[in-house]
Amino acid sequence: MRLADPWAIGVDLGGTKIEVAMVTNGGKLLERRRRPTQVEAGPDAIIAEIAGAVKDLIADGGSPPLGVGVGLAGQIDPHQGVVRFAPNLRWQEVPFQEELSQSLRLPVVVTNDVRAATWGEWLHGAGMGCDDLVCLFAGTGIGGGVVSGGKILSGCSNTAGELGHMTIDLNGPLCTCGNRGCLEALAGGWAIALHAKEAVNADPEAGAFLLRMAGGGFETITAKIVAEAAKAGDPLARRLVDSAAQALTAGAVSLINAFNPCRLILGGGVIEGLPYLVDQIDRGIRGRALPAATELLQVLPAELGKDAGVIGAAMLVIRTFKEKDHQH
Amino acid sequence: MRLADPWAIGVDLGGTKIEVAMVTNGGKLLERRRRPTQVEAGPDAIIAEIAGAVKDLIADGGSPPLGVGVGLAGQIDPHQGVVRFAPNLRWQEVPFQEELSQSLRLPVVVTNDVRAATWGEWLHGAGMGCDDLVCLFAGTGIGGGVVSGGKILSGCSNTAGELGHMTIDLNGPLCTCGNRGCLEALAGGWAIALHAKEAVNADPEAGAFLLRMAGGGFETITAKIVAEAAKAGDPLARRLVDSAAQALTAGAVSLINAFNPCRLILGGGVIEGLPYLVDQIDRGIRGRALPAATELLQVLPAELGKDAGVIGAAMLVIRTFKEKDHQH
Repeated sequence: MRLADPWAIGVDLGGTKIEVAMVTNGGKLLERRRRPTQVEAGPDAIIAEIAGAVKDLIADGGSPPLGVGVGLAGQIDPHQGVVRFAPNLRWQEVPFQEELSQSLRLPVVVTNDVRAATWGEWLHGAGMGCDDLVCLFAGTGIGGGVVSGGKILSGCSNTAGELGHMTIDLNGPLCTCGNRGCLEALAGGWAIALHAKEAVNADPEAGAFLLRMAGGGFETITAKIVAEAAKAGDPLARRLVDSAAQALTAGAVSLINAFNPCRLILGGGVIEGLPYLVDQIDRGIRGRALPAATELLQVLPAELGKDAGVIGAAMLVIRTFKEKDHQH
Repeated sequence: MRLADPWAIGVDLGGTKIEVAMVTNGGKLLERRRRPTQVEAGPDAIIAEIAGAVKDLIADGGSPPLGVGVGLAGQIDPHQGVVRFAPNLRWQEVPFQEELSQSLRLPVVVTNDVRAATWGEWLHGAGMGCDDLVCLFAGTGIGGGVVSGGKILSGCSNTAGELGHMTIDLNGPLCTCGNRGCLEALAGGWAIALHAKEAVNADPEAGAFLLRMAGGGFETITAKIVAEAAKAGDPLARRLVDSAAQALTAGAVSLINAFNPCRLILGGGVIEGLPYLVDQIDRGIRGRALPAATELLQVLPAELGKDAGVIGAAMLVIRTFKEKDHQH
């Protein structure tokens, strides 16, 4: 395959796998390589693994890419591309951008995985053409990204968009972050699973269907099993999903009143598993958020699914280096 | 008084009074005029009143001002400066900018009152020199403004910053907006007064001190009286203030995790009446917001008090028209 237009490599560096993709200027994912993440082997081995996959794709690409964009779950220093802290990878203060760039002799940009997905949805997914949007991704955890006035917000120390840790129930359940009543502690996948386990444990009769679906042990209940049981009509599972939906609606109302987006884009495993939540949240918002803040609002499902991260990381590179070209 | 440097007029158009001030390029308030707001007389009379006060100040100013900036509580169309809805003034779809501009033959900019105060605090108050900040003003109601990456967020329909209507207790008390558990419904001045009335009504013995301070009738209890009683050590009043402080802390945590500001600036009557709340909220945040989002955070009291609005409205004009000059 030979590419004439500018293109870039997008990398989604997760705790279990690395996804490396060739993405065109137009946001099209052409080819990809997948590798397991060998967390035990440490940063150097992971960097070598990524470099290998990138070189493999470049050999196919004809013209060289503008650069490599990487999204990963962690706190990143945006100036140096140092990964300050990435618990999944067990990294602390890893000069990732510099090392990958030296190894590849290509420009590298590093960003948070959720922000990369926001770039993807904004430029080539459900956010196309829109200058004011909020992406809310509800998976095991909940995170997000905000575009306001045509810019992605990054904040003072590059951590803006921790939307799963907005307090929506100040006396609510404990969150993994140490606070109480975070959106994530009520509607994240881990919280749905936890609440299901607690409910089944407290009332095994009401939980019989969930227990059967989980193979008999309440410890193996997951958010996915709860979603499937809810779709099958199990009353307990429906109650659990409904409570997560109410929490997501409350969180969405906070986001809409605070940011006044034109589009609220909902994605992540919880939403993909229960796609009717998008409409349910949309209806819930209409009666609760300020009318002035909702009059132009659209609530939409994310469009790129699991590819949002690699596409977004590549688009960040294209934006960064095409703009630099224009400045010279 | 004769002014050599560029200057502007700032107007704070409230439901009971109009404040018109002469503000220098450097954010200094030189002179002011105050007029009652004659809501009954309608928009034309109010516009004439403002125009009269402006002309009066201009006669004093020597060089003509760059223009007139007006902040008012309401929803404003930013392109035309039409006041879409201002319940205090009982205005709907008033082409305010155009009419005031024609009457004065000067450029006029209209903005929301809280956003004007944010401009003031950002450029000449507690936010000076900072590109990422959140202003939270807790008065009778709660509102705010957000500066991110050196720009004030306006949102899709110019209503960004309704920070008092973030949900922090999804099963909490009703708010005036129709939703439940908004920050304002737990910590706004009206809510503090309401909760005090309810508490005193439920237990007049515990409320004896508050009742005495309010002159005997529980209907006359205000947030200010609660603040004074708390300062005097009354246990019920302290409990009420503490509960508002907890709500403000929860709201602040949401803001910090979502926006990652460098500074959180707290102002408004509730904070001015209980200045120790700034430290209390600061301490509360440290244990609850994400460490990565608080490492560079400062929590500061607002500096401009009631003048933030007029100074900010004038600065918006100076920014708008000085920048335009530079473009030509």
